[in-house]
Amino acid sequence: VLGEALDTNGRWLAARLHALGIRTVEHVTLGDDARHTAATLRRLAGAFPLVITSGGLGPTPDDVTRAALAELAGQPLEADPDQLARIAARLHSQGRTLTDPQRLQALRPRGATCLDNDLGTAPGLHLRVPAAHAGGPPGPWSDVFCLPGPPRELEPMFEDRVVPRLRPDPAGVPAVRLLHTVGLAESEAAARLGDLLERGREPEVGITASGMVLTIRVRGASRPGGPGAVQAADHAIERARAALAPYVLGTGPETLESMLLDELVRGRARVAVVESCTGGLLGSLLCRVPGSSAVFAGGWITYADAHKLALGVPAGLLARHGAVSPETARALALAGLEAAARAQEAPGVGPLHCLAITGVAGPGGGTPGKPVGTVRIAHAWAAAATAAPSSHVTARHFHFPGTRADVQERAARSALAMLLFHLRGHGPGLPPLLWERPAPPASLTP
Amino acid sequence: VLGEALDTNGRWLAARLHALGIRTVEHVTLGDDARHTAATLRRLAGAFPLVITSGGLGPTPDDVTRAALAELAGQPLEADPDQLARIAARLHSQGRTLTDPQRLQALRPRGATCLDNDLGTAPGLHLRVPAAHAGGPPGPWSDVFCLPGPPRELEPMFEDRVVPRLRPDPAGVPAVRLLHTVGLAESEAAARLGDLLERGREPEVGITASGMVLTIRVRGASRPGGPGAVQAADHAIERARAALAPYVLGTGPETLESMLLDELVRGRARVAVVESCTGGLLGSLLCRVPGSSAVFAGGWITYADAHKLALGVPAGLLARHGAVSPETARALALAGLEAAARAQEAPGVGPLHCLAITGVAGPGGGTPGKPVGTVRIAHAWAAAATAAPSSHVTARHFHFPGTRADVQERAARSALAMLLFHLRGHGPGLPPLLWERPAPPASLTP
Repeated sequence: VLGEALDTNGRWLAARLHALGIRTVEHVTLGDDARHTAATLRRLAGAFPLVITSGGLGPTPDDVTRAALAELAGQPLEADPDQLARIAARLHSQGRTLTDPQRLQALRPRGATCLDNDLGTAPGLHLRVPAAHAGGPPGPWSDVFCLPGPPRELEPMFEDRVVPRLRPDPAGVPAVRLLHTVGLAESEAAARLGDLLERGREPEVGITASGMVLTIRVRGASRPGGPGAVQAADHAIERARAALAPYVLGTGPETLESMLLDELVRGRARVAVVESCTGGLLGSLLCRVPGSSAVFAGGWITYADAHKLALGVPAGLLARHGAVSPETARALALAGLEAAARAQEAPGVGPLHCLAITGVAGPGGGTPGKPVGTVRIAHAWAAAATAAPSSHVTARHFHFPGTRADVQERAARSALAMLLFHLRGHGPGLPPLLWERPAPPASLTP
Repeated sequence: VLGEALDTNGRWLAARLHALGIRTVEHVTLGDDARHTAATLRRLAGAFPLVITSGGLGPTPDDVTRAALAELAGQPLEADPDQLARIAARLHSQGRTLTDPQRLQALRPRGATCLDNDLGTAPGLHLRVPAAHAGGPPGPWSDVFCLPGPPRELEPMFEDRVVPRLRPDPAGVPAVRLLHTVGLAESEAAARLGDLLERGREPEVGITASGMVLTIRVRGASRPGGPGAVQAADHAIERARAALAPYVLGTGPETLESMLLDELVRGRARVAVVESCTGGLLGSLLCRVPGSSAVFAGGWITYADAHKLALGVPAGLLARHGAVSPETARALALAGLEAAARAQEAPGVGPLHCLAITGVAGPGGGTPGKPVGTVRIAHAWAAAATAAPSSHVTARHFHFPGTRADVQERAARSALAMLLFHLRGHGPGLPPLLWERPAPPASLTP
């Protein structure tokens, strides 16, 4: 609650519960406030059959979970003799002796069970309370598990001491299917998916966006009626695939970069980059993927005009059309292709590609004709690692919204998408990518 | 709640609220469930004067925040004509047209105010409700702000549209002081800070680590006793500065990259990069900072040996010492310096630097003598934008732990730190940086 740490335990627990077929409804983060913690435990135990806490079991005064659990139980704290012996033995093996603060860690509310901690001093706690006792309806009960905060203690304690006490319904494990797209706006994807996205539909379909990739997530019921749920999820993902073609990338856990790498490896192809406004980002995205050495053919960060000339862009062309023009983008891609072909270590082996980016990333440098966000991306390629005359080149025109970092990120990812779709044979058959604009008339002035 | 994403918005908001003197009591994460979201908004608005939500404002049916707010208000959703016009204009400027799902984003509960979104289509929402209306006590009211989920939209909207509507108690603003270091391990920093880090101490001192930068955070009481708290915080930060010199970078909100940029601008200097295993990351870190055009002198991604030769590394040297050697690192930096000097548009103006990185990022490619993580970083410079014979060059040897992406990130940031400390006049007086190793004996075989 101070904004100093990211909560990774909550994500880890939610992912594990989801895989076990248990749906997480709510996740609460609280400060070291005993009263508010007790009130929250009461609210949750009254409404839900399972409550898991992490942290607040240590030996210092800001550790309030133990007292809050006692308040929920309506029972006093008392020492657990087994745990006291375990803690003393653990400290002894480290050449230390039991102190009063450490003694506190062996306390548990009367009626609660301690969960052994093999990797730290604080045991976990388990309390089963009737929901009615916490203000809930009569009948159901709630299992409350209190786990230590350090992930290296929490994770094994959850697996070894909590999971065996849970009774998830095996038929409740959800059928989850994923589908990734790139180059499509979220609203456009939603329009294409139509009724698949309706709330309350079975299976449930959602969209998340990250780094220009949209992920369509199909989730079967958490209480599905047997194998039918799997079929329904498969059916929904096939409907989504048909609706979103040709923008579909794949269905696995892969990223845009890793899929491009796989495609290049498959075709024994290599790619060079020429970057202006992205300053190396496109190259670094490609080189972050393990195995990229096999496909990366080097790069040039031709930030200023002088660097573009040095790479081989004709001075007359640059003067005539300006740095941010389809002509210069194409010339950069062809110059990079030639330079990479010259440096190719095994000439004549496999196709060679070159992606070139030139644009106005901002925040300064925009003009009325070429506002901030204007980016041209060119793709040059040759069937073998030789450049002209057998090389091809194409340029696309984009206008990316956002900050400087956004424009750079979007430009680099659009370049990756252009090459990936080309390698998959879409070529000119691909509808416009997100933020792509029709080619403007030939630019005659810079 | 599915365990797929870490919540960074919650941390960011809590940190900003804390700095404004507003204490975060509770932080809740919910699934896309309209009913439970509405019930939670009601619970929070009945108990707290300020509620901020993030996410769920998009155009698809799984975006439930707008409907939940309407339920809290007890008012129907109606279109905001201004926002409808804004959304249409935004889409139009991107060459797109308004679709029905996008129209939904202009809806707001009657009585609520829209918050303009300068960086996306979904406006934020502000609703002021009496706490009593949400089951709370008569008298107080609650301000509910609904912000979009993407951090790049949420953060400026919070600063520009929410902060001006808050009324924090100035006496509640804690005295917070920051100090950044780079090149120092967290455990080493903790040992140097000693008793400053003790719990229960006033002011409180903590350390957080991110991207190789350590941030020392001094926090006075959240209800400080007047100016004394400010003096105590200032005193603590000065003790920390003395203990951590010479690794101290600064005390502001700046990043390593932006501080380097400022230092280069101040000295009218420029920097070129030659990257092997980082594939463009160093260039992209420099070019992400607005204004980098003034200082960035281009780059070469010399991934394979052939690219190193093409830039001007002597073939005999490369064959004798191998690609990952101090000799090759120095030759790369000097070759980059020469090439950048040749391309310099205004020759003779200001100093020119070149950083070169060559190493084994892994996961493959390691050898017993040069295991994964071995990286050499060289820095060449000339007082004016002319290369040899007046140029200087130095190389450092690192062994970075972690994944391929970790090694790349740490190598690029170490290069930035080397140049920043050089520009600040530390030069050879700087103790070893984190993960730096003593120079190995001259490498005679690749």
